Amino acid sequence: MIFNYPNGKKYTPNTNKEPAKKARVQKNAAYSNRGMTLEEDLNDTNSYYVDRGIAVIHKKPTPVQIVNVDYPRRSAAVIKEAYFKQASTTDYNGVYKGRYIDFEAKETKFSTSFPLKNFHEHQIIHMKAVLVQGGICFVILRFSSEEEIYLLEASHLLTFWERMKNGGRKSITKEEVIEFGQQIPLGLHPRIDYIKVIDYLYKLS
Amino acid sequence: MIFNYPNGKKYTPNTNKEPAKKARVQKNAAYSNRGMTLEEDLNDTNSYYVDRGIAVIHKKPTPVQIVNVDYPRRSAAVIKEAYFKQASTTDYNGVYKGRYIDFEAKETKFSTSFPLKNFHEHQIIHMKAVLVQGGICFVILRFSSEEEIYLLEASHLLTFWERMKNGGRKSITKEEVIEFGQQIPLGLHPRIDYIKVIDYLYKLS
Repeated sequence: MIFNYPNGKKYTPNTNKEPAKKARVQKNAAYSNRGMTLEEDLNDTNSYYVDRGIAVIHKKPTPVQIVNVDYPRRSAAVIKEAYFKQASTTDYNGVYKGRYIDFEAKETKFSTSFPLKNFHEHQIIHMKAVLVQGGICFVILRFSSEEEIYLLEASHLLTFWERMKNGGRKSITKEEVIEFGQQIPLGLHPRIDYIKVIDYLYKLS
Repeated sequence: MIFNYPNGKKYTPNTNKEPAKKARVQKNAAYSNRGMTLEEDLNDTNSYYVDRGIAVIHKKPTPVQIVNVDYPRRSAAVIKEAYFKQASTTDYNGVYKGRYIDFEAKETKFSTSFPLKNFHEHQIIHMKAVLVQGGICFVILRFSSEEEIYLLEASHLLTFWERMKNGGRKSITKEEVIEFGQQIPLGLHPRIDYIKVIDYLYKLS
């Protein structure tokens, strides 16, 4: 079946992988500050887990301060003015084999270190509280230039955060990420199989 | 110190409790369909738990589909058009003594039954998945006319949901809520001490 676009251009299925990858790279460039593709990959991974009954982990909705809502009809309220709020917790949480799972995901364009300014004091306080309650808490760190992703347990992140608070460096060196974290191999389905790392670290499998 | 409102009216501190209570009742009436006061009471309760290191449980942000954002400056993005989305999960989750906690809170003005239309199919599917993963999942039901609040475990809710799916009644009778649920005594601080019920049901204390 041949499709034509409304402009009359013929639809040609993209059988060459290269252009798609190129488009992806451009998207990375445009959205790199907002962690869009990392978020998409994690949402895809979480859907994979939920669909297969492996784990129930979701991204929390973006916190928004709603200021003005139009109610033309009750069923079609339109938010006319709202602002992004800073999250007071981490973005992802859920349950896996009875354990509470909680994490934040961030990426950097730097190759040699991961800046700690990617995290907020609120989130650090939240992570500490989760650890006190016996939850499994970590961060997923993406080095976007190298396309490398690591899982770093919150306990280690807290150590590096304390070092910064005590006047030390404002980032985690790549060597430290490698030493204290676990690299997550990238796949297609699921894309970022972090549950395997959790199985390994917490002997849950 | 005497304050004057901009309109020149003198500020008189409200030392009489009655008018405040009256205002609250009016608010209940205005917001009853949106569960505002139940939400406020639960947020207050969750803050109480977090502040004292008792549990880390938060309400998820309201899911919003953002359509149009104005970026006058990067630091002050204004959402100009957005819509409320239906939640695909429950509203509250977190961790307590290592256990994953997940619940939804709803209220009704009815006195003799709790309508099941307060829950969506998505949420029911989510609750099932949470139970499969060994999470603690329940609903908090408020009968607003009587100011009575019950905790009903998801396993029971699922039974009543199935009954409806099989052509049975579209609500849970008040008697059933009393039989299968646990009433949560209302307090001042915290207002809805549901963790005590969890301790009792799951022998966590």
